Amino acid sequence: MWETFLRKVYVVGIGLTNVGRFYERSLRDLASEALIKALDDVGNITPEGMVVSNMLSSLIEQENLASLIADYSGLRGISGFKVEAACGSGGAAILAAYSLVSSGLMDIVAVVGVEKLSERPTPEVTRGLAYAADADYEIPYGVTFSGLNALVMRYYMSKYGVKREEIAVWPVLMHENGYKNPYAQLRMRITIDDVLKSPVIADPIRLYDSCPLSDGAAALILASEDIARKLNDTPVLIAGVGNALDSTDITSRFELDTFLASRLSAERAYRMSKLGPKDVDVAELHDAYSINGILTLEDVGFAPKGQGAKLLSEGRFRPGDKPVINPSGGLKSRGHPVGATGVYQVCEVVMQIRGDFPGIKVPCDVGLTQNIGGVGSNISTVILKRGD
Amino acid sequence: MWETFLRKVYVVGIGLTNVGRFYERSLRDLASEALIKALDDVGNITPEGMVVSNMLSSLIEQENLASLIADYSGLRGISGFKVEAACGSGGAAILAAYSLVSSGLMDIVAVVGVEKLSERPTPEVTRGLAYAADADYEIPYGVTFSGLNALVMRYYMSKYGVKREEIAVWPVLMHENGYKNPYAQLRMRITIDDVLKSPVIADPIRLYDSCPLSDGAAALILASEDIARKLNDTPVLIAGVGNALDSTDITSRFELDTFLASRLSAERAYRMSKLGPKDVDVAELHDAYSINGILTLEDVGFAPKGQGAKLLSEGRFRPGDKPVINPSGGLKSRGHPVGATGVYQVCEVVMQIRGDFPGIKVPCDVGLTQNIGGVGSNISTVILKRGD
Repeated sequence: MWETFLRKVYVVGIGLTNVGRFYERSLRDLASEALIKALDDVGNITPEGMVVSNMLSSLIEQENLASLIADYSGLRGISGFKVEAACGSGGAAILAAYSLVSSGLMDIVAVVGVEKLSERPTPEVTRGLAYAADADYEIPYGVTFSGLNALVMRYYMSKYGVKREEIAVWPVLMHENGYKNPYAQLRMRITIDDVLKSPVIADPIRLYDSCPLSDGAAALILASEDIARKLNDTPVLIAGVGNALDSTDITSRFELDTFLASRLSAERAYRMSKLGPKDVDVAELHDAYSINGILTLEDVGFAPKGQGAKLLSEGRFRPGDKPVINPSGGLKSRGHPVGATGVYQVCEVVMQIRGDFPGIKVPCDVGLTQNIGGVGSNISTVILKRGD
Repeated sequence: MWETFLRKVYVVGIGLTNVGRFYERSLRDLASEALIKALDDVGNITPEGMVVSNMLSSLIEQENLASLIADYSGLRGISGFKVEAACGSGGAAILAAYSLVSSGLMDIVAVVGVEKLSERPTPEVTRGLAYAADADYEIPYGVTFSGLNALVMRYYMSKYGVKREEIAVWPVLMHENGYKNPYAQLRMRITIDDVLKSPVIADPIRLYDSCPLSDGAAALILASEDIARKLNDTPVLIAGVGNALDSTDITSRFELDTFLASRLSAERAYRMSKLGPKDVDVAELHDAYSINGILTLEDVGFAPKGQGAKLLSEGRFRPGDKPVINPSGGLKSRGHPVGATGVYQVCEVVMQIRGDFPGIKVPCDVGLTQNIGGVGSNISTVILKRGD
C-alpha cells in the first residue's frame, strides 16, 4: 500500500560535513556539525524527533547514538532512535523519518547520518564492514566484503560479455565529477589506465574500483506540508520512498547479475511518486564498487539489463545527459561514510533541485537516490521533486 | 503534535520464545521462532515491512539483521530495517513500526525484538552493555553500567530517606510474579533476606537487585484498522506511543532521582491516548535494577515522588490492586533480552488484554509498558487498549 500515503513530507533543510579521514574529531562532533548546519539552513526551529543512521559505532564501543547526538546538539528531550541497515542505513533512516512525519505523529524530524571509522585500525574496520554479510555462512570461510562483490562483477562480465575496460569508465567519470565537489574525499582525476593498473583488491575488483574508507556526517530536516511552506521558500518534496530486503548471504540468490532489492525498492518509490526512470534528471547511486554502480543503472531502469557499462562507455550519464549520474562523484570520489551515505545522497539531490550544489550543477526537477546495504540485501530508493 | 495521528494501529498477533541462556541456538533461529509464532497467531499473512530491534549483535559480528531475519523467515522481498536504542530498542522499534502503518505507507508490519548474548563470554557482554553509556566521558573512568545505576539508587535512598529493605521488596515481588510465567528465565521465589544477603554488584546494588543476562526474541504484528478487523477477533489498539531522549551520560543531568525521558515519554503517550495513570490496569515496567522499577513507578504517575518504594512495601501493585505491576516478573524474573525486552513487554500486556497470558492473569482493558535505554537516556512508553 505504498501509494496510499496520507501527508506530504518535504525536505526543508540540509547540512553536511566534508567527507574524509578525521583522526582528530569525534563521532558526536561530526554528527552535531551536520545537524546544526541543517537546523541553521532552515532557521530557528527545534525538531520533535531525530532518526540517526549509523552502522559501526560499536567499533568505538558506543551505541545509543540518538541520545548522544541530541544531547550534544542541545536537543535533550526530543524523541529519537538509531536505524541500522549496514551501508544502507541512511536510506532506511529516511524511510523511518518520513513515516514519523507522514503519520502525523510529528511535524518536524531530523535525519542524521554519521560514521566515524578512522578511530580504529583499517583491518578492524574491514572486518566490521563484513558484519553486513552473513556472519555464520559467509565470513567464516574467509571471504571479504570485496570478495563477495568480486564474484558479482566476474559473473556480470562473463554473462554479458562486458570488458574490464568498459567497467573502468565508471570510476574515471566519478573522479571527473567529484573533482569539482568541495565535500568530496578523493578530489583527483584518474584515467582508465590508472584503474587497470591499480592493485588488485579481490580479482577483478581493483583499488580504483573501490570506494575509500570515510568519516562524515549529513543531516536532513523533514517537515509536513503546512510547516514546510512556512519554513522554507524552496521545500523539496519526498515524492517516493521505497525499501526492500534480499537475503544477507549471496549464496542463496536466484540471480547475481541483478539485485532483486534494488528493483523492488525502485519500483516501490516510482509507484508512490507516479514517476518513472525517464522523469529523473539527476541520480545519486551507490557505487561502493564500480560493479554496484553499473548494476544499479540497470536495476533502477536507466539502462537495459547488461547494457549499463556499454552505455556508460559510449558517453551516457555525463553532465548534459538525462539522467546525470552521481554529479557528487559518488561513493568512489565523494567517499562512503557508511551509515551517512544515503543521507549525503539526498542532501546532494536536494541541493541540485535548489540550485545550490557547490560542485557540478545539473538542471533538476526530479532526482533519485539509491542506497545499498550489504551485497544488495537492504536497499532504499528516494525520489525527490521540486516543491509545487 | 503527538495527538494528531491519522490511522489507528492495532496489534493483531504476538509470538515469543522462552527467555534464557540458549548456547545452542543462533540469533536468527530465535528471531524466526518468535516471528513465525506471531504470524501463525494471526493466520496466513505476509507483512509488508519488518522492524527489528537489537542492541548487541555486533558482539557476534553480525549487523544487517532485517535482511537476515526476513530471509530466514521466508520473507525475502519485504521492507525493513533495524532500530537500536540500547536496552530501549524494543520500544523505539514499536514507535517506528507504528508510524509505518499509521502513515499509510504499509498496512501490516512486524516488529521483531531479539538478543543473543550467550555466544560471548560474560565480561565481553558486560562491556558491550556499557555501550549504552558515554564511551568518551563515562566508561574510560572505569565505571560500569551497574555502577552508574548504583549512583542513582544511593542518591534516591538518601534524598527520600528510603531504607534498603524497602527497595528489596521489588525483586521479591518480581520473583513471586515471574514464578508463574512459563516464559520467564528465573522462576524461583526469594525473600527480602535473600536480597539483602546476596553479593554486592555495585554498592548499594546487589545481585538480586539486578536482572540476569538473557537471550530471547519476541514479535508483534501491527495492522491498520480495516485490516486488523478482518484478521483478528480481538485486536488490541495501540492507543498511545511516546518516546523521549535525555543525555547519554548521567554527569550532566539536572536531577538523578527522576528520569526526564521517562516522564516525557509517558506524558506523550498519555496525551495521545487521552488516558492517564489511573486508567491503567496492568503495567510492564523496566526494572533492569530494582531502583529503575521504583523510579518508573513514580515517573509514569503510579506513585508520588519519593513514595514508590514505600507504597510497594505497604503492599501496593500486587495482583488484585490497580495497576498491577509486572505480572510477567519484569526484567528481574522474566529476564532482559536487551533489544527484545520492549517487545516482550507489549506482548505480555496484549496477552493480559486478550486473557491468554499463561502466568498471573489480571483483568485488563488498558495496559502500559515502559522500556528504558541507557541510564534513562532513551525511553519509550506504549499504551494498549482493548479494541472497541
